Formats: sequence, structure tokens, C-alpha cells
Amino acid sequence: VRYPLSVLVSEVGEFGLIELLCRELGLPYPPGPGRPPRRGFIVDVGDDALLTAPSPDAGVWTTDTLVAGVHFVPDVTPWRNVGWKALAVNVSDVAAMGGTPSAALVTLCLPGDFCVEDAVELYGGLRECCDAYGVRVAGGDVVRSPVFTVTVALSGAVPAGGPYLTRSAAKPGDAIAVSGALGAAAAGARLLLAGRRESAPSELIEAQERPRPPARLGPEAARAGLRCGIDVSDGLVQDLGHVCRASGLAARIEAAKVPVSPALRREFPKDALDLALTGGEDYQLLLCGPLRTLDLLIAAGAGLTIIGETVAGEPSVTVTGPAGDRVFEQGGWDHFRSGP
Amino acid sequence: VRYPLSVLVSEVGEFGLIELLCRELGLPYPPGPGRPPRRGFIVDVGDDALLTAPSPDAGVWTTDTLVAGVHFVPDVTPWRNVGWKALAVNVSDVAAMGGTPSAALVTLCLPGDFCVEDAVELYGGLRECCDAYGVRVAGGDVVRSPVFTVTVALSGAVPAGGPYLTRSAAKPGDAIAVSGALGAAAAGARLLLAGRRESAPSELIEAQERPRPPARLGPEAARAGLRCGIDVSDGLVQDLGHVCRASGLAARIEAAKVPVSPALRREFPKDALDLALTGGEDYQLLLCGPLRTLDLLIAAGAGLTIIGETVAGEPSVTVTGPAGDRVFEQGGWDHFRSGP
Repeated sequence: VRYPLSVLVSEVGEFGLIELLCRELGLPYPPGPGRPPRRGFIVDVGDDALLTAPSPDAGVWTTDTLVAGVHFVPDVTPWRNVGWKALAVNVSDVAAMGGTPSAALVTLCLPGDFCVEDAVELYGGLRECCDAYGVRVAGGDVVRSPVFTVTVALSGAVPAGGPYLTRSAAKPGDAIAVSGALGAAAAGARLLLAGRRESAPSELIEAQERPRPPARLGPEAARAGLRCGIDVSDGLVQDLGHVCRASGLAARIEAAKVPVSPALRREFPKDALDLALTGGEDYQLLLCGPLRTLDLLIAAGAGLTIIGETVAGEPSVTVTGPAGDRVFEQGGWDHFRSGP
Repeated sequence: VRYPLSVLVSEVGEFGLIELLCRELGLPYPPGPGRPPRRGFIVDVGDDALLTAPSPDAGVWTTDTLVAGVHFVPDVTPWRNVGWKALAVNVSDVAAMGGTPSAALVTLCLPGDFCVEDAVELYGGLRECCDAYGVRVAGGDVVRSPVFTVTVALSGAVPAGGPYLTRSAAKPGDAIAVSGALGAAAAGARLLLAGRRESAPSELIEAQERPRPPARLGPEAARAGLRCGIDVSDGLVQDLGHVCRASGLAARIEAAKVPVSPALRREFPKDALDLALTGGEDYQLLLCGPLRTLDLLIAAGAGLTIIGETVAGEPSVTVTGPAGDRVFEQGGWDHFRSGP
């Protein structure tokens, strides 16, 4: 503990807080004369805006927000993990385009009685995620708010003329594959809400609080010749539904082939498949394309599982299983229609 | 009124709302097959991330947030004006780098009982500001939150190898100039909080709710040979203080030369100078550089006023006036130390 718990952000002020957060990132603040910008930046943190050096690459750009009480519970989830996740969920989006992430802008909306120590912890987790994925924080905004929110805007790159992934590039007859195992993050949320952090399998808590999107798999899949990808954030069925609508086709997946987290299966055997299909927050990668291309990726150790195929037809997702077919025309997580 | 007041965002759901907001922007949503992206984009709104075409320019990138109850009062300020301002404050930052704005990501944090009509109005104002400044909305995020916030991340460009403006490029002996007239936005805030929207001079309300940053002046100043600029958002004294700290020098300005909004002078004659010096939210441009360069810009109709000069010394801002000198070592708006 480097700052007494009693120090509030209202006491150190906006610029005092920014200085502490920059220190946590190893950045000088306020910027002064004779401090050169980091490589790739013409003007670094601390001016009206960031100025990045020209690049021959295509730009990738996305943003995602975490709201206290909606996306996490402040008294339950350590701030360090909130910082990690705020960036990781954006890394997942960049990877899903086949891109490599680079620079982040971070906006903190903080109540005046927010503890400085918690803000520094948050930035500690953010930095860990930056280090894990090669991202640099390069600016942002800190404002007063009755409710804590953190918004990250993340930029990245796809090599000029290089391949990328979209939701709209699936073709009928494509195989459908997903990375990792699903449902663990949703199981983790359920366990945390039940107050079971200590007794729960740690991999389920980790999946919820410190997701690890397979960032290299996106560019690797694009280079291998795939063109259709999306990250699994709203839930497998809903995200596959996005692919169906954007590509103008239908999808069939086999329940038995969906990679369900083993720890989830042990913890919630009855609901395991449902959580894997619709739980969301997996931050894994869903890919569609020729079966032989996916098989080559799998043979190279990509950690993918073939779960079904796309077919011509109106957008819908059908899950086939021993008890019959379930057809989803819309499903999964909707931020306004249901809670976390 | 295109939607009944009674329709809430929780009723149309996240994707229903996004579709309505895209319609307000003239964009197809959800994206489907055979819909080409807009010029300059490889992948447009509706995928995991935006993909922009490679460009020879240097990139400018900034973000700014408005929080309900902190930066505006929901029952007082029309949502259309909130939408305008959310983008305009970012345009101001891009201009202050000498850049030209291009694409925006918009994050809405909305309570479930937020009216769809208000969200559409907000986007109407956002679109007006987009049209005024040549900006295109190209993505974002919509999440549930107990408190309304809107965050815009704005990208822009500076020609490759071209000149740009920073806070750190002032030199001792530079003249200091500011665009437009100051204090009107702070006066507008005071009048709105006093419930005087109808009886107040409209230019003061407009200055508060629909700021018009001089976006072309930033690139024009850089082309003319200036290298130091900052936007006046926290208040003249505080923003000039940022220049002093970043450039390692002091500044002296003459109170009598500060361009005070005439309407402000009529409305609050006693406090007019103080509001112009420290009120903030002016979104005008402060420039430092050779007097002859600034004079040439003024002769060309740039709408600038010379207000003082920089001098060697420890960072501080001195305001000289008939009643003596006032020295500010720190001043203006601090988001955590004082309210709006």
C-alpha cells in the first residue's frame, strides 16, 4: 500500500491524480521540455491530443466501457482486475479484426470520494494488461462522476493491403470454429455474485476478471487465409448471430462439439452448456472459413475447436443436440434487456 | 417527435437503439452483405472495430467525456445540445494540435429508463456538429449505467511532416494570443443554473451549450509558422499555466487586453474579467509565437487578440491590471476540487 486509504481523488485533484497514474505507467507527467516522445509518437501523453507518426498500416480502432455495478461489483472485484479487464475486452475486439493492438486512451469517471489507492491499483492492472499485449497508454480523460466508469479506446494496425477479419465475410458451407473453452467467465460471475470467490475454482474467477483474449490468433487466422471472425463477448449464440446477419446466412452448431470449460462443467453440470452458449464475456475468437484452413491452424496448435457450419438461409443459429434442435433467431446478452 | 416519450431504451434493447441512432446518422445498421464502407474506411460501423484505410498523414487522437449532473444538468440542457457539445469539445482538442478532425467513436452510458427520443435527439445534435466540422461517427459502445455519460474519442490528421502545435513549444519572448472572446460559456452556465435560460442573452447560452471551436485556425496557425497552441477549456489562466509548465517559462498577460465577451460584460460587469480569466469551457485557441507571425494571422482575419507575452522564469501566469498584478501559479477549473 503506497498511499493511505484515506486519500481521496478530490484531495489530490485532477492533475495530482493524473501524475500518480502516469507514474504507475512509468510516464513523466506533466510533460516538460526535453522529454522526447516514445517511439511511434510525435507528441506523447500530456498535450491536448496524442500525435502518432505516419504508418503504412491500416488502422483498427475500437472502444469499450466498464460501469461499476453493471459490469462488475466494486466491493467484490479488485480494482487491479477492473483495470486489466478494461483493456483486455478491447484487445479482443482488435484481434477479432485480425489486428495487432498498439495505443490506448483511458477515460476514468470517478466519484470525488474514490480512493487514490484504488485508482493506482486500477492502473497497475491496466499496466499488466498493457505489458501482456504490447499496448501503450497514450492519453485519456479523468472526470468527476457519481458512478465509476472506465472507457478504453484502443487503436491497432493491420498491415497495408494485408488480410483482415470481418463479421460479414462468412460463406455458406464454411466451417465454424471457436478458440479456447466457453462459459467460464459467466460461471465466474455467478460464483462472485454468490460470494464464493474463495471457494470457487480460480480459473472461473480468472476467466471473469482477467480474460485473456487470444490476441495473436486473429492476425494468424487472417494470414492463414480466413476472412471471417468475431470475438465472443455477448455469448456464442448471439455473436454467431451477428455473423449470420452480417453475412446473410444461417449457422448450425452441434452442442456436443461446443468446448465447455471443464471447471464450469464440474461446478454447474446442469447449466454448463447454456452458459457456454449464451453466457458471454468469453473474449474468445469465433472464426468461419474453409474446413481445411481451420484444420491447418488447429494442426499448428491454434487451440481451436470446430463446432459447426454455415448454411444458406435466413439469419439464425441452430444448436443441434441429443434432445433435439434449438433455434435462436436472437439471443445472448443485451445490455438493456437483462442484467449481468 | 418521432418516438413516443414513453419508449425507454430498455424496451428497444441495445441493438434496437443502435439501429435508431445509426438511422439518425444516415447509416445502415445492422451492416449486411453488399454494403460498401464509406470512403476512407475499409470496415465501417457495425463490426468488432473500425478499419481505416492507410494514410500518409500523422494521426491525432483524443477523448473527452460529459457526465450528467457534472458537465450539464439533464432537465436544463436539451439533449440535442449535449450531443453537439460532446463532439465539439473534442474538435477543440484536435484543432489545438493543428489537426483536422475526421472520425469519432461514441460511447453512451445510459440508464435503462432513458427515453429513446432523448437518445435520438442527442444523436441529432451530434450529427449537426459532425456536419459542421466534417466528422463522421464510425463506431462506439452503448452500455447500461445508473448515470448518463457520453464519451467521444475523436481521430484526426496532420499532414505527414507537416507542422503541428504543442503546449511545449513556447519560447521566452513569444507573443500570446487568444481567439474569439472569453467567459461567455461560464456566464451561460451561471445563467442556466439560475433558471434564466429564457431571459438570458442567447449568445451566452449558446456559448455554454453549443461551443464552436475555431477548427480551421489550428492548422492555419501551424501553416503560418506557429508551433505552440492549446485550447482554452479549463480557463485561460489554467491553460496558459499548462503551456508555461510544458514549455518551462512564465507568462504575463494584460487584463485590459483579454477579450471579454461583450454580452458577459453587460450581464455580469463585476465578474466579467474573472470569468474570462478562469471560467473555462471557452473552447477557443491560445497561441504563442513570434509577434509578427501572429500579426500576419490577425491581418488575414484570424479573429485573434494579442494579450501578453512569455518570459523566462519559473512557470506562472501573471495578470497585470490597474489594481496591480495577480500571480497564478495554479488556477482555473479542477474537476475534483470544485464543482461546475
